[in-house]
Amino acid sequence: MDLLSIKDPVFLKKFSNKELEVLAQEIREFLIGKLSVTGGHLGPNLGVVELTLVLHQLFNSPKDKFLWDVGHQAYVHKILTGRADQFDKLRQYQGLCGFPKRSESEHDVWETGHSSTSLSAAMGMALARDLKSTEETIIPVIGDGALTGGMALEALNHIGHEQTDMIVILNDNEMSIAPNVGAINTMLGRMRTAGKYQRAKDDLEMLIKKIPAFGGRLAATAERVKDSLKYLLVSGMFFEELGFTYLGPVDGHDLEDLKSNMTYARKTKGPVLVHVITKKGKGYAPAENDAKGTWHGLGPYKIESGEVVTKPGPPSYSGVFANTLKRLAREDDRIVAITAAMPGGTKLDSFAAEFPNRMFDVGIAEQHATTMAAGLATQGMKPVFAVYSTFLQRGYDQLVHDVCRQNLNVFFAIDRAGLVGADGETHQGVFDISYLRHLPNMTILNPKDENELQHMIYTATKYEDGPIAVRYPRGGGAGLKMDSELKEIPIGQWEVLREGADLAILTFGTMIPVALEAAERLSSQGIHVEVVNARSIKPLDEIMLNKLTKEEKPIMTIEEAALLGGFGSAVLEYLNENNARSIIMERLGIPDRYIEHGSVPQLLEEIGLTSENVVARIQQMLPKKRKRA
Amino acid sequence: MDLLSIKDPVFLKKFSNKELEVLAQEIREFLIGKLSVTGGHLGPNLGVVELTLVLHQLFNSPKDKFLWDVGHQAYVHKILTGRADQFDKLRQYQGLCGFPKRSESEHDVWETGHSSTSLSAAMGMALARDLKSTEETIIPVIGDGALTGGMALEALNHIGHEQTDMIVILNDNEMSIAPNVGAINTMLGRMRTAGKYQRAKDDLEMLIKKIPAFGGRLAATAERVKDSLKYLLVSGMFFEELGFTYLGPVDGHDLEDLKSNMTYARKTKGPVLVHVITKKGKGYAPAENDAKGTWHGLGPYKIESGEVVTKPGPPSYSGVFANTLKRLAREDDRIVAITAAMPGGTKLDSFAAEFPNRMFDVGIAEQHATTMAAGLATQGMKPVFAVYSTFLQRGYDQLVHDVCRQNLNVFFAIDRAGLVGADGETHQGVFDISYLRHLPNMTILNPKDENELQHMIYTATKYEDGPIAVRYPRGGGAGLKMDSELKEIPIGQWEVLREGADLAILTFGTMIPVALEAAERLSSQGIHVEVVNARSIKPLDEIMLNKLTKEEKPIMTIEEAALLGGFGSAVLEYLNENNARSIIMERLGIPDRYIEHGSVPQLLEEIGLTSENVVARIQQMLPKKRKRA
Repeated sequence: MDLLSIKDPVFLKKFSNKELEVLAQEIREFLIGKLSVTGGHLGPNLGVVELTLVLHQLFNSPKDKFLWDVGHQAYVHKILTGRADQFDKLRQYQGLCGFPKRSESEHDVWETGHSSTSLSAAMGMALARDLKSTEETIIPVIGDGALTGGMALEALNHIGHEQTDMIVILNDNEMSIAPNVGAINTMLGRMRTAGKYQRAKDDLEMLIKKIPAFGGRLAATAERVKDSLKYLLVSGMFFEELGFTYLGPVDGHDLEDLKSNMTYARKTKGPVLVHVITKKGKGYAPAENDAKGTWHGLGPYKIESGEVVTKPGPPSYSGVFANTLKRLAREDDRIVAITAAMPGGTKLDSFAAEFPNRMFDVGIAEQHATTMAAGLATQGMKPVFAVYSTFLQRGYDQLVHDVCRQNLNVFFAIDRAGLVGADGETHQGVFDISYLRHLPNMTILNPKDENELQHMIYTATKYEDGPIAVRYPRGGGAGLKMDSELKEIPIGQWEVLREGADLAILTFGTMIPVALEAAERLSSQGIHVEVVNARSIKPLDEIMLNKLTKEEKPIMTIEEAALLGGFGSAVLEYLNENNARSIIMERLGIPDRYIEHGSVPQLLEEIGLTSENVVARIQQMLPKKRKRA
Repeated sequence: MDLLSIKDPVFLKKFSNKELEVLAQEIREFLIGKLSVTGGHLGPNLGVVELTLVLHQLFNSPKDKFLWDVGHQAYVHKILTGRADQFDKLRQYQGLCGFPKRSESEHDVWETGHSSTSLSAAMGMALARDLKSTEETIIPVIGDGALTGGMALEALNHIGHEQTDMIVILNDNEMSIAPNVGAINTMLGRMRTAGKYQRAKDDLEMLIKKIPAFGGRLAATAERVKDSLKYLLVSGMFFEELGFTYLGPVDGHDLEDLKSNMTYARKTKGPVLVHVITKKGKGYAPAENDAKGTWHGLGPYKIESGEVVTKPGPPSYSGVFANTLKRLAREDDRIVAITAAMPGGTKLDSFAAEFPNRMFDVGIAEQHATTMAAGLATQGMKPVFAVYSTFLQRGYDQLVHDVCRQNLNVFFAIDRAGLVGADGETHQGVFDISYLRHLPNMTILNPKDENELQHMIYTATKYEDGPIAVRYPRGGGAGLKMDSELKEIPIGQWEVLREGADLAILTFGTMIPVALEAAERLSSQGIHVEVVNARSIKPLDEIMLNKLTKEEKPIMTIEEAALLGGFGSAVLEYLNENNARSIIMERLGIPDRYIEHGSVPQLLEEIGLTSENVVARIQQMLPKKRKRA
């Protein structure tokens, strides 16, 4: 059928399995074709085609509510709810969002991006339903990776306790982005191979009938055996212990198996967990045979060959981080690396290859990772937690309470700091300065380029006065020649990149080229701008600030980070505390709203973090005579 | 023996059980006596006397490491490590800390206060041990309540997976502060009553021998039955599923039972969980028979009668919150209340009594609570999450990603905002403004007194433009007459409490009396200070700020909250954005360091949040002529 003609999933009600199978094939071809151009999360969506079809056939969205945990597997749902025509602009500026989005469709009842939130949200919706005495079915769809996040486990504990009606679909593809770790995953592995619950139950009924009668103490045990039939099975026990009815494992690509289990689940009171086994990348050989997670989310590729289109470019910041850390780890065996399910994204997989005993992937568990790092630090180790800016938000209390309060030497390598582009508002790394800067004992650095990054990695591993964060952006560096010798970057000391008498721009990282370009343009107008690499965000360079204020030089701060409570505010606070209020100052940065998806240059344009805007703002800041000079 | 003479726990090595029993009794008497004067966490410590004695006898602290989760049960440990003489100043200014403190003793290897951190820290220490090839035993002691915290579950998952050597002691007293909730707790209840693991195992061996031989498919099942012996048992399965060896349940007041299990645990490879059943308040009848959690942590009491010494005083802020919420809930059935294991502290227990179906205690699970509230809000409910400022830190990412980003109508009643006193640095509620203010869509209010609090509760339940937080302090109000009619407090609108031409103090909540007193004193010197109730922290009152800046009035901000990124910084940002840099301004608040325990007045004195200091600073701020006027 013509996918573009779909307005509403109601057409699915009358489809036979045969028709659904044809449609599944069409959807797969559509996704493989569209994403070969736009890029996107191909693997996860190919894995849930049948599951999504069955959900929309058996249930009535939006009355019944599907909550897509993490949300990158919602493309099929988007197609079935009338958005196929928007896939040409998937994850592009003002185009279709790569995650569920309430403003896009009434069928998107809950927005995601970060993992492990769906069960808590589903519990809220289910409680609301029960209080209002309505009858919708609440169906969170959560992956086996997301299930290891602490908040999902908190939710399981609460849902099981309250015995709230709900169908949790455990979409078990044995991967999160990279292969999963953790005891729960091991357990799921046992379940997968344990065969069907129902069949084994039947076997056991037969078996139990043959147990002879016992007297006394043994009789009580035998009774317990009969009562505890389900515990005889490997499968499901963990969830049954938590109060869920466990169904599965179900073949996630077998329509009949899916339907019969979902129908049974719908009839069951209390919380049900349907354990659905799916294959990431199902139906497209390159994605199916993907061991490294390449096809989880990617850019354009060639359909026939499965060749991923890669633009040659300089090494990524993540790559420079990991390479430098490996180099340092060869000299210092106290260095250990930690990731929360991001060995590929952080490039720590290469560290693990060289130092398998000194790299810990804890799964999606940023709270645990942060405090585990603190524990390592108490024993004189040098833990390095490489984590995306947006995900370290999960470790905020652990930063406050465990790391900073005890002033422990933990090094946070904060990747994807600043705007991240296509992943959009759930993933922008724009709050870290605001949530880290007010923590006592914390040091925050930000390199101007990949060469300075390697020196900061070196600096951070040498630093022994408490926690230190080095934040760096997503993507590639400038392709600079890298210094062969590593050196310490003095903490609390900035660097003048360009002299200029009329105004000083204090900025760091990605905004430095913007500032330099603006300065260059202004110089042709006779306005001479100093550009300072304010690489030490906390502490500030007080000597330089004192010099600038003594000279009464106007200041502009520019940051690819939230303005409220950010670097510019730190400078304001300093000037205020040092009676330098006469200084003319302006702060550029990310305004007080969430920034949606788009390319980073488009987003920077939208919020005015461009050299054009810097030029214009400086022209306005300075007295007229300057401009005429 | 003389407890004051203890310098080091090594003396315990030679103690017989008889001697340990005598010592246990002496320790109980000591604690009951000392805490009757100072107050403190009596119940938890009476529960772990035997456990702590056995740990210090069988293991070698500080080489072997005890990690006290939450940490309020470490008094016995403090006595045994030479700190009995400091109990007269327990939890007092510059006295003994109520939690483990690394600076107090080498035996305090990990500091706690918030729950559920010990397993992650223990994992860090155990990994460090294995990398360094040393041989210490790592022993986290975690309560059944703390076990429901997501980060503890993340840690269990990781520890079980890595099979790291460690002895986790599950100190199961069937309570956290209040009785526990959650499916895990229900499961622990089954375990407690299931009898000893080993005995049941023996029974089963006998039973299994009597199962006749089967052929074919049933034979395979019978094999599985034999292999899965442990799964026949209720007890321990959950933890065994996660990769732990489960020992227990152990009687936590039976020295021999404790010793034999701990000895066995020490010999066992991989992670072991020893399930120890203790009784909170053991050995002191009033505390043993405590259903409401009164004796968990309390002030002075009379030893003989068990009568708690209560100072009569005005209703607490928490009480006013809960009463107002009940009143509003009678009119609006969309209002539902949520607590994370704090029904007593937040006073929501009274809400639960009236509206049992509309109050949800999710256990120690702030992440889940925050996002569950968001889920409720998507369905048109009005969820109110009452949570201490310091514990909402655990929900930061859920605030960023789920609540504020989706702009949902969740009301956060932030209790214990500001300094909390005796609990000290782990519990001070001083970061909330800094971690909330930079979140888009967030509104933050703070009442000047309990009467304004009730109006703000009303306002927040009426507000339907996104998330809103009302923060209020620990303790009692001023005993004001309460308005009988509730009214809306206009958001973004401040209130002039006292007129004055020379300077304006912008402040809120607890600092208002300080400001008014300073203003009064200064008026006798001819300095006329305006005092503004800046009750809307976000958004600011821009009209008033514009008026002040137009008048070029100097401004002082005062806040019982962190200065970095706080309210004063918000005012600075506003002035900066509105070219009002000529305004003289000074910010008072909490400096960039952690504030230890003490009475709130002592702490305020230490950091200069007193009327004396306000007077002195204002005298310095204003031009000389003012002072001479």
